[in-house]
Amino acid sequence: MTAEAPMSVHDVDTDFRPLISPRSIAVIGASDDPAKLSGRPIGNMKKYGYAGRIYPVNPTRSTVQGLPAYRDVRDIEGDVDVAVVVAPAAVVPGAVRGCAEKGVRFALITASGFAEAGADGAALEQELREIVAGSPLRVIGPNCLGLVGLRDAAVATFAGVFESGEPLRTGNVAFVSQSGAFGTFLLGDLDALAVGMSHYVNTGNELDVTVAEVLEGLVREDDIHVLLAYFEGVSGGRRLLQAAREAHREDKPIVAVKSGRSEAGARAAASHTASLTGDDTVFDQLMREVGVTRVFSQEALVDAAQVFDARRRPRGRRLTVLSMSGGGAVMAADTASDSGLEVAPWQPEWQERLAAVIPAFASPRNPVDLTGSMITDPSLMRSALATALENPDTDMVVIVVGNADSFADPLIQAVSELYATTDRPIAVSWTGGTGQPRRRLRELGVPCYTDPTRAVAALGALADFALRRPLPRPERPADVDVDGARAVIAATRAAGRTTLDEAEATALVSAYGIPTARAVVATSPEEASAGVAPGDRVVVKLLSSTITHKSDVGGVRLGLTSPEQVAEAAAEILDIGRRHGEESPRVLVQQMVSGDAELMLGARVDPSFGPVVVVGLGGIFVEVLADTRIASAPTDVEHARHLFDSLQGAALLHGVRGRPPLDVAAAAQAAERLSWLIADLADEIAEIDINPLLARESGVTAVDALVVLR
Amino acid sequence: MTAEAPMSVHDVDTDFRPLISPRSIAVIGASDDPAKLSGRPIGNMKKYGYAGRIYPVNPTRSTVQGLPAYRDVRDIEGDVDVAVVVAPAAVVPGAVRGCAEKGVRFALITASGFAEAGADGAALEQELREIVAGSPLRVIGPNCLGLVGLRDAAVATFAGVFESGEPLRTGNVAFVSQSGAFGTFLLGDLDALAVGMSHYVNTGNELDVTVAEVLEGLVREDDIHVLLAYFEGVSGGRRLLQAAREAHREDKPIVAVKSGRSEAGARAAASHTASLTGDDTVFDQLMREVGVTRVFSQEALVDAAQVFDARRRPRGRRLTVLSMSGGGAVMAADTASDSGLEVAPWQPEWQERLAAVIPAFASPRNPVDLTGSMITDPSLMRSALATALENPDTDMVVIVVGNADSFADPLIQAVSELYATTDRPIAVSWTGGTGQPRRRLRELGVPCYTDPTRAVAALGALADFALRRPLPRPERPADVDVDGARAVIAATRAAGRTTLDEAEATALVSAYGIPTARAVVATSPEEASAGVAPGDRVVVKLLSSTITHKSDVGGVRLGLTSPEQVAEAAAEILDIGRRHGEESPRVLVQQMVSGDAELMLGARVDPSFGPVVVVGLGGIFVEVLADTRIASAPTDVEHARHLFDSLQGAALLHGVRGRPPLDVAAAAQAAERLSWLIADLADEIAEIDINPLLARESGVTAVDALVVLR
Repeated sequence: MTAEAPMSVHDVDTDFRPLISPRSIAVIGASDDPAKLSGRPIGNMKKYGYAGRIYPVNPTRSTVQGLPAYRDVRDIEGDVDVAVVVAPAAVVPGAVRGCAEKGVRFALITASGFAEAGADGAALEQELREIVAGSPLRVIGPNCLGLVGLRDAAVATFAGVFESGEPLRTGNVAFVSQSGAFGTFLLGDLDALAVGMSHYVNTGNELDVTVAEVLEGLVREDDIHVLLAYFEGVSGGRRLLQAAREAHREDKPIVAVKSGRSEAGARAAASHTASLTGDDTVFDQLMREVGVTRVFSQEALVDAAQVFDARRRPRGRRLTVLSMSGGGAVMAADTASDSGLEVAPWQPEWQERLAAVIPAFASPRNPVDLTGSMITDPSLMRSALATALENPDTDMVVIVVGNADSFADPLIQAVSELYATTDRPIAVSWTGGTGQPRRRLRELGVPCYTDPTRAVAALGALADFALRRPLPRPERPADVDVDGARAVIAATRAAGRTTLDEAEATALVSAYGIPTARAVVATSPEEASAGVAPGDRVVVKLLSSTITHKSDVGGVRLGLTSPEQVAEAAAEILDIGRRHGEESPRVLVQQMVSGDAELMLGARVDPSFGPVVVVGLGGIFVEVLADTRIASAPTDVEHARHLFDSLQGAALLHGVRGRPPLDVAAAAQAAERLSWLIADLADEIAEIDINPLLARESGVTAVDALVVLR
Repeated sequence: MTAEAPMSVHDVDTDFRPLISPRSIAVIGASDDPAKLSGRPIGNMKKYGYAGRIYPVNPTRSTVQGLPAYRDVRDIEGDVDVAVVVAPAAVVPGAVRGCAEKGVRFALITASGFAEAGADGAALEQELREIVAGSPLRVIGPNCLGLVGLRDAAVATFAGVFESGEPLRTGNVAFVSQSGAFGTFLLGDLDALAVGMSHYVNTGNELDVTVAEVLEGLVREDDIHVLLAYFEGVSGGRRLLQAAREAHREDKPIVAVKSGRSEAGARAAASHTASLTGDDTVFDQLMREVGVTRVFSQEALVDAAQVFDARRRPRGRRLTVLSMSGGGAVMAADTASDSGLEVAPWQPEWQERLAAVIPAFASPRNPVDLTGSMITDPSLMRSALATALENPDTDMVVIVVGNADSFADPLIQAVSELYATTDRPIAVSWTGGTGQPRRRLRELGVPCYTDPTRAVAALGALADFALRRPLPRPERPADVDVDGARAVIAATRAAGRTTLDEAEATALVSAYGIPTARAVVATSPEEASAGVAPGDRVVVKLLSSTITHKSDVGGVRLGLTSPEQVAEAAAEILDIGRRHGEESPRVLVQQMVSGDAELMLGARVDPSFGPVVVVGLGGIFVEVLADTRIASAPTDVEHARHLFDSLQGAALLHGVRGRPPLDVAAAAQAAERLSWLIADLADEIAEIDINPLLARESGVTAVDALVVLR
């Protein structure tokens, strides 16, 4: 049993096909004037030739833009897949109620003036929310642009980009954005770069439908190969993980911008789409886990879209750089290194083969500097690129050129012809000039950029996706004792507490097989000393949920080695407990364990993404550097190990400068088990903090655990 | 006395005005055909109307492109400021010898095939180097593009960008680049963005003249306001620091790309311009120190050039964001935070003033979301921008718009009119559309970008420059004992060693007033125990330069508290020394000091930048995280303190989670003194490593110092 994190109004599996391929579209509040904002949705659908049925709804007219109009959406005789509500905020609740009663599948609300606009808007939004909660109708918006289904010309939108009436370039890239304008800016850019789009869905305030849900619907469309997303908040993060895992399995990249990272950005997001932006670290790390490519600007999103739209997958990270500029080659090599790509010198035999076809003063190593001779001798690029593509050590190629419009023709021809002969990814950086060569390469399907660092970063993102880690495949360890763990929590709650004492916390994590220091609870000196054996070294601590700083009152005695010492210490501590108001004082007698280093494990329930597990190095790494890694829970031991290995201070795990290596396998197992604990008991537990987890060359021990219940 | 780091052939103060404003230019190897590479320099100068004297040198012709030709540069009757040598590599040494004899001031060599092209080329280069070393002639290249003095139409270059014959756009930005093509790519981009250039100098292989020297010459030109630079290697780093300090004082920004950061990039740089790329961390941190803006791509260089070319300086870091896209506003706010800018909500009275002029559903806080209404109501942007500029809390403004070509006119007019009324920096991000609005804003002098993150990053770079830290003003502490320090080194050298033993190292750093643990050197048990007083806690160590691991042979005894213990330990250790072959063994008797944390100080002589001082936190911060900061030596105590405060783990210095705060002032003083030590003795010392420097709430102590001589 796994608790649900808060979701939108509906947390159901909705069939999104009526939205993605609508057979009929009603426009509520449609104007007869196609130039008006409220007239544009119908105007655009007519202009671009939407083949489904269009139903204008307008109580004051019998026809709208030549189509028969309906007084009310409920009057429409046929089924309505989508209703676009272009009416002002005040009348939206009534219109949506009509949609719900009519059995409309999706209502898209364009009006703003809801939760983002203060108290009155929030009240309207609450009214909407109540209507929607009681109905299978799904709502997109408010504060959205309408529908932009390019594939079917279902352009029921007022977005200005369709004003020109230029033919739509359609293709295999879909874009889902919380922000309307951000999306339409991108549509223009993508179109200019000849990236064909299938859909653009703008979710606005996300009263109901989220970006994540739409992505999930779009991933399932066979002819959609690339998914772009813009988030401000992520409501329903677990739904997003689900969509991303499906995309991971289907080999469909999701490229995401998530803004509102900063305090000012989060404030702006709240007033823009009423979004709570959430914990950026959690978003960032969980997106890595599920293979989502995160970028940080509009242009980076477009850059990635180009290279992913080419649908090629490198088999490795070895990049060949062919450049007419030595400086450009050096910049490309630097960015390759930043992006996790390798620019290694070719094998000698391949250097010789290349040297045979390029001038003596050009460099046949990798990066390959073809020098300006590339311009005067167009065959040079053809020969060099052909050799690079024959070389089995070339996983990808970046070509760096600039200006040279007058010599562009043979270059473009050579590159595009050779591009067609290979399945290896190739990107061109063409700086400066008129831009005409870039446009021609794009029309020929070759990814083309204005700066070598952008071209290489895009290839790096492609390699990261193509060579992504497998998804964790969590399997519950057979020996975890869920009932035992629940019993511990029930006892704590029965005692009227929401924080476990140390004995309870130890019992809880022990129930999931996380190694803890051996300990007994005692109510008398005799009980305390009973189990102490020769060679033991123990600590006696007061068990109290009211006294927070136990050592300040003398409630902790360390390094005791005999039953006599333990009995004496226990007697004193039990007295101290009584003096501080504990009616039935108890002590914990715990074996002292040594460790070569301190790690930490944590777990909590994120408001958006649900249960997560956190690993880190202890001490200053957590306190000063916040060097931690996060996974969605439950996770598997391989992924937990990867989290440890990707810590900034990971070198410490493997024994640096004379320090012993630590048992990372045991630490990863403990993290796996903790991830099951939080996943299984997310309905009960808010937060677990095991700090330190003492690690040795062999084994780990949880020494102190803090557990807070919901 | 400060030692010189290796420099180019000449390390002299050259007058660069003959290069920057040449009155006469010879072209050696000039072709009569202006279409040929060797004909272009004269062709371009004639085409663009260079007003100085042009001397073609060609032994086979009496005229070249209508100008009287000379058989030899020595035959020219008048003075020659610049000779551009367009002859092939093999004949270059002869031509350059002619230039030296003629008294030419600068020879620019365009041929490649020198050090970057293997052994034969290296021999030619060596020949050149010898000619130049014996002459005041300064050489630029080999492997350069010739001269591109746009200001005077001194375009003695074969660069293809001048083929079109379009009028030159001249202005106040100069660019110096090691890479030729990188530079010409940029020239095109800068021209397209209406950034007017004064000079483009390409230094190629830097046999003699470096980027740094040319920068220094250009900084001194009154009408040059912005300097752009592209480096692969930095030969003569100290010259670069000198140029940058002059630019810092003159309020002239230098924006630099330094490539070859990665291993593959460094390899590519070696084959491109035969450059050793050096230690990137040293470059990066010293450039921060002197106020150079470092960027990492062509486009970032151009982005910064735009905003610096506007010559405005913000008085603070408070950015007002005016956006027609809520998403764009959020992105802008995030990047502002990344770039060290503040996007804070306006004061209530200013929010009210703004709310009075914008629609109710727009947000009057900051970021200000004007929504799509900005398009339909052009007065909106005018009112909002005017209010923003009246608000004294606005240091800078970024305007985020997109597409909307059809509504561009009033917007451009409002922005450009208000731009002219203020001295505060404004940048526009105009995404998508035809690009026409961007071009018009640029022609009107308004910085304009394609992505809000780029616009804001450029404003961030501008603020960093405008509000840069003052240059360190090092003053030698009065009590440093240079002679004493030199005496210690002389004694070490006299003993035939280049590594100081612990007593010598302690004496050396003590001579510069760096606090050390009290210690005496003893040759007998009696001497060793003589100074031990009640309450002392000392360590006795074997002094040996041959035995590296003293504790392994029993040569270290810790925690001794009485004269008897010390005498006994000293006797044993002296015996151990004898058994290990020391003829006159000695011991060091050192007070044990405690510390609350370990810091480290280092100093070394960088091959390019000369003496530097390094500070860090000790232990894992240095070993695992390489968390150090570097300054050129000597430095001052304020800057040393700034270095400590900018460490990643700086929170530890100020007492984090119950740890005591450390005496950062004392640590900074020790760093200042160490910087003087390395600066004064850079001719002797290769490296000093004080690790740890024990730090307490009051005071620091250097406990162990390793000193290696050159």
